[in-house]
Amino acid sequence: AYSEKVMDHFANPRNVGEIPDADGIGEVGNSKCGDIMKMYIKVKDNTIVDVKFKTFGCGAAIATSSMATELIKGKSIDEALKLTNKAVMEALDGLPPVKVHCSVLAEQAIKAALADYYKRN
Amino acid sequence: AYSEKVMDHFANPRNVGEIPDADGIGEVGNSKCGDIMKMYIKVKDNTIVDVKFKTFGCGAAIATSSMATELIKGKSIDEALKLTNKAVMEALDGLPPVKVHCSVLAEQAIKAALADYYKRN
Ligand code: FES
Repeated sequence: AYSEKVMDHFANPRNVGEIPDADGIGEVGNSKCGDIMKMYIKVKDNTIVDVKFKTFGCGAAIATSSMATELIKGKSIDEALKLTNKAVMEALDGLPPVKVHCSVLAEQAIKAALADYYKRN
Repeated sequence: AYSEKVMDHFANPRNVGEIPDADGIGEVGNSKCGDIMKMYIKVKDNTIVDVKFKTFGCGAAIATSSMATELIKGKSIDEALKLTNKAVMEALDGLPPVKVHCSVLAEQAIKAALADYYKRN
């Protein structure tokens, strides 16, 4: 039921962890399943030079966050703000309909981390 | 928010995998989050000599399944049938209320695997 890319990012998630001296931290919760996602970003010259995430969420949440962090790493803040969960799902070759709500966590966490960055600066 | 035991079973889940020559296989789905759990049991002389599980579910589902498999391994079928998700949660020192629905997966999967075993014999 899951694409090869989803299984790969679930089994070997990229950018898992924390950034102690992060420039922005976003924490969001999923009202449907109760899962929480925390995203850390490091910004230099308007570019996201590092990003890490932590979640207790399901495999779909882990895979979408892993892919989402890959997609925004090295990008400008403006580009990162434009990332949608639809784009992340496409990059993963899709998700089963029942798991689409899990992919929302990653997009929301990135936006929350960027909002936190703006608030600090 | 999570107990040390939950974090331990999430980070180092016991009995993850498949049993190729299983005597019973149970597959259940969680209508609330769409997650799926698959449980394999090996039975000898009415005793559960081996049990393994696979899930794409969240950390709470992984931790409860890990603990549940530990609790039924080496037990009789009758004892395993009596295992409730309440007992599993207690063994884990509790779960946040929003994650209680995840713990149901493990109990249901064990019962489904045992039902499959009875059906075959
Ligand atoms: S949120 Fe689906 S099993 Fe926990």
